[in-house]
Order: sequence, then structure tokens, then C-alpha cells
Amino acid sequence: MDWTAEIETAAARIAGHVVVTPVMHSASFGVPVQMKLEQTQHTGSFKARGAFNTLLAGPVPEAGVVAASGGNHGAAVAHAARALGYPAHIFVPEMAGASKIALIERTGAALTVVPGEYADALDMARRYEAERGAMQIHAYDAVGTVAGQGTLMREWEAQGLDADTILIAVGGGGLIGGALAWLQGRRKVVAVEPMTCNALSASVRAGRRVEVPVSGVAANALGSRSVGEICFSLVQQQATPVVEVTDGAIVEAQKALWQAHRQLVEPAGATALAALMSGAYVPARGERVAVLVCGANPAPDPLA
Amino acid sequence: MDWTAEIETAAARIAGHVVVTPVMHSASFGVPVQMKLEQTQHTGSFKARGAFNTLLAGPVPEAGVVAASGGNHGAAVAHAARALGYPAHIFVPEMAGASKIALIERTGAALTVVPGEYADALDMARRYEAERGAMQIHAYDAVGTVAGQGTLMREWEAQGLDADTILIAVGGGGLIGGALAWLQGRRKVVAVEPMTCNALSASVRAGRRVEVPVSGVAANALGSRSVGEICFSLVQQQATPVVEVTDGAIVEAQKALWQAHRQLVEPAGATALAALMSGAYVPARGERVAVLVCGANPAPDPLA
Repeated sequence: MDWTAEIETAAARIAGHVVVTPVMHSASFGVPVQMKLEQTQHTGSFKARGAFNTLLAGPVPEAGVVAASGGNHGAAVAHAARALGYPAHIFVPEMAGASKIALIERTGAALTVVPGEYADALDMARRYEAERGAMQIHAYDAVGTVAGQGTLMREWEAQGLDADTILIAVGGGGLIGGALAWLQGRRKVVAVEPMTCNALSASVRAGRRVEVPVSGVAANALGSRSVGEICFSLVQQQATPVVEVTDGAIVEAQKALWQAHRQLVEPAGATALAALMSGAYVPARGERVAVLVCGANPAPDPLA
Repeated sequence: MDWTAEIETAAARIAGHVVVTPVMHSASFGVPVQMKLEQTQHTGSFKARGAFNTLLAGPVPEAGVVAASGGNHGAAVAHAARALGYPAHIFVPEMAGASKIALIERTGAALTVVPGEYADALDMARRYEAERGAMQIHAYDAVGTVAGQGTLMREWEAQGLDADTILIAVGGGGLIGGALAWLQGRRKVVAVEPMTCNALSASVRAGRRVEVPVSGVAANALGSRSVGEICFSLVQQQATPVVEVTDGAIVEAQKALWQAHRQLVEPAGATALAALMSGAYVPARGERVAVLVCGANPAPDPLA
């Protein structure tokens, strides 16, 4: 797979459809840190990149597009489909929560709320795909999705990223997969998972993709029972370190982002920072660290 | 007054003490717009710039520093005083509201809540200054304050601001005063006031500084009964246009900033954008517009 070419193509494709998200330095979290505020993206997370990339690559069948999602991917697919004029049907688990469900409803997409978790919504979305002939956009384990998310790291480097190490939260692995695919080992990437959603960590320990139970404060964004093959393969190739953080550390980091910089994010959006603040990841002396802030669809929605 | 020199000096003085705040483009508000997210600044508003500039210029008497404030300036002075090791006493009106009062309390500054509005708090602060010999930091009508706020526009230009016109919300006029002082007419600045806090607009109409009653959703940030002499003099010299927006338009813009880019701001922070969204200011064809997002201490505090 020529990931550089895939990501360059994706970047050209989605330009103008996505937000070039802002970057900043902070001295408020113990060690100096660079951040990219990707939650300023359309629908509040990086997911819009992969969604637009897939839809713009086309062709999109008459039945439109279908996606399963903990919430953020579904909102992004719904947004991109509306922007480009395609019908969309989104399947989310109940655990997506009221504010993410309302966000998807506002796009006008058809929405089915499925009892259970992400994996259950994915089963339903696959059935819909088979029956209707709709185009499935996988939340994390498809080349188009990963290449779309990879445009984020390309963009950050173009904005002058000056870091040795980038901390990235992991759910199914689409975001970190895109980052690894773009960077090809040029910078160190540290994967950060909640202890309560640690599919990547468990898989790295086992030496193969394994399923884990998922729960906790970030489960409606990072609660994939297993990581994608694309992500896992890149993590193994690059020997990407994985650290785990407690739900308490995530909530602390969420609070700190608000108090220091008035960035109100969801727990998943603060998970990478939690690794730094809690000491789950300790940079070496002089190591320049960057943290990706990736999502802000908190519950409750503060202005709903 | 050599404002360029004052602002250059201020910028050198406060470097490292304040956040270099991020900038971004948005296509989500009808016309393309550049934004500076100054609410990511320490204590959630631009006020930290003027506070640090004044304190670092020194000397600070043993009695420390005193300030009157609708809330944001007080929080900034309290933060800067703590960071530099000076005692601070802040006077705020009741209308500052619980979340701004709690913000100041968290800094450890002495705090007196005064019945009434900003002008009443200022009376008390002046009495304290006279009795104790503390250094008064005026919220908007002092050279050190205005020069500090002026560093914002200097910084934005260094970040590549590519705008013909910048929309800026006005309370007492420290922020817009700093912008006018820096720009010296090189770009068009549009002053934006809530109809319910329109001291600048009323003064421009009268041809002299006049007092107005203040109320409405942004009164705890923009509710100064009169504008400062420094601001008014610069507005008259440069014939700065002033537009007014309704409270309803401000609330709409506040909601739009959250929905489009997950920036949760207070009403004052959305007031400049409200002028664009409501049509109170209509750019000419091809006019490149920038909006300054200036404060995010909303009530209630979403994570208190």
C-alpha cells in the first residue's frame, strides 16, 4: 500500500470540504505541549476527513451510504452525505448518548438506534448494506477512512509541527492508523487507550487482534471491542508504544483543557492529554511532545 | 503617544506569560471568515495581556494590586498577580455571576462582590487604591492595559492575518483601543456593541463620551456605562464604524460557534460574529473579514 500517495490524494480530494484545524502551544499541563484542535472540525471530530474522502472517491450507489458508529463517525458521514447530496442511514448503539444522537438527527440522515454497543450497530449496518446495496463506510478499518484521517498529520506537519512525539487516543484505530501511515516512522507516535477500552493494548500483548469488553467514560467514542487490521498491522510494523489511562485521569484532563484553554471536549478528546498529565507517558528530557485533541461531542451538549 | 513602541515593548514583556492564541479560517458562517481564538488565553479572555503588561512594567507596591471588573479583567489580574507573586484584591459587581466569581476565587485573590454593576465596583476599587496604596489596573482606560491588549493584533498579523476588516466587540474599549493603536488605519476595524450596552455607539452619535444604561446577555463583560478616553479618541481619529447587535443575534452566534467549531464562548465572545451573521455588518464583495473571538467564561461553567 502506497500510503503517502493515498493520503496525498485524500488531502487534495477533501480540501475545501473540511476545516483546516488550528494548532497551538500550551505551557499549562506540566510539560510544554503542542496541540491540534481537531475538535473544531465539522461535526466535532476528525471523522469528517475519512467520511469526505470515501464519499468523494465514489461512486456512491443510488441507495446512498450506510455507517455504524459510536456517534462521531455517524455524525461525520451524515454531514458529508448531506453536503454532497447523498442519502445516508446511520446505525448507532444506545450508548452513543442523547447529544450524539441529536447531532446526527440534525443532519437529516436516517438513524437507527440499536440496543448494545458499537459492534451491535455494525452488525445492523452490514445487514442494511447487504439488503439495500448501500455503500458502507467503515469507521476505522477501511483504506479510504484511514487515508482520510491520515490527512490530519499531513496538515499538522504543514502547519509547522515541531514535535518528536505525538500522543493519539485510540478506539478502533482509524486516527492513529492514518498518523502512522503518513509518518512512516519519521516521528514517534504513542497510542493512548482508556483502561476500560484497551483493545489495542490487549492485542499488542497477545501478538494478535483480540476482543475486549468496553466500558467507561470514553466508551461512546473509543469503545470498539477490537482494533482494525490496518491499524494493528501498522502498530506492529512500527512497534508503536501503547499506554493506558484511567477514567479518572481522562476526566481530569477534560477539566484541565477547559480550565486552561476553554476547550470543552468529550472524554475521548482528552484521553491523549491524560497520558501526559497522569504520567502514563513520561517524556524524556528535552523531548518535544504533541497532543492531538480529537473530539468534542460531550454529554450533555452545553447549548442544546 | 508612540503606540507602536508601547505595543512592541508590551509584546516583549509578556512573551512567555501569555498564550499565543490559535487562528483559523471558517466557511461555516455564510461568508468566509478568519478567526482568532483568544478565549484560549489564560483565564479565558484577552484580559491577561493587559494585566501582565501592567504588572511586569512595575514597580508594584507592597500593597499589591487592585482591580475592578465585570469579571474577566479581575480574573486576569488575579491570575497575573499570582503568577508573579503579588497580592491582589478584586472588586466585581454581583452581575459578574457565579462562574466568573468562582474563577477569581480559584486564583486565591482577595475578592469583594459589590452590589450593582461595573461602575460601582470601580468606585470601591478606587477607594481601596487610595486607602491602601495598591496599584490600580484599570480594565480598559490605561495605557498599559491598552498596549497589552494591542499585542493581540500584532500577534495576529505575525500569524498571517489576511483580512481587510476585523470585527471586534466593545465594552469599555480596551481591546479595540489596542487594535486601533496597533493598526493605525492599516486595516478597517468595525466596532460591535450589543444594543443593550452601546456606550461607544451613543458617544459617537453625541460626538463626546456619554453614559448609557447597560443590561442584556453580555452585560457582565461589555457592560461599561461609558467607554474609555483612550478608545474614544482613537475611534474618533480613525472614524471607526460602530454597529449594534441584538441580544438574540448574540445568542445565535454563540450557538453557531459551538455547533460549527465546538468553541463554547460567553455572549461577549460571540458578539463580533453576531454582527456578521445577523447582517448588522455586510462585507462588500471580495472583502476579507476577520472576527475576534475574545472571551469564554460562560454561565453556567460547563465543568464546574
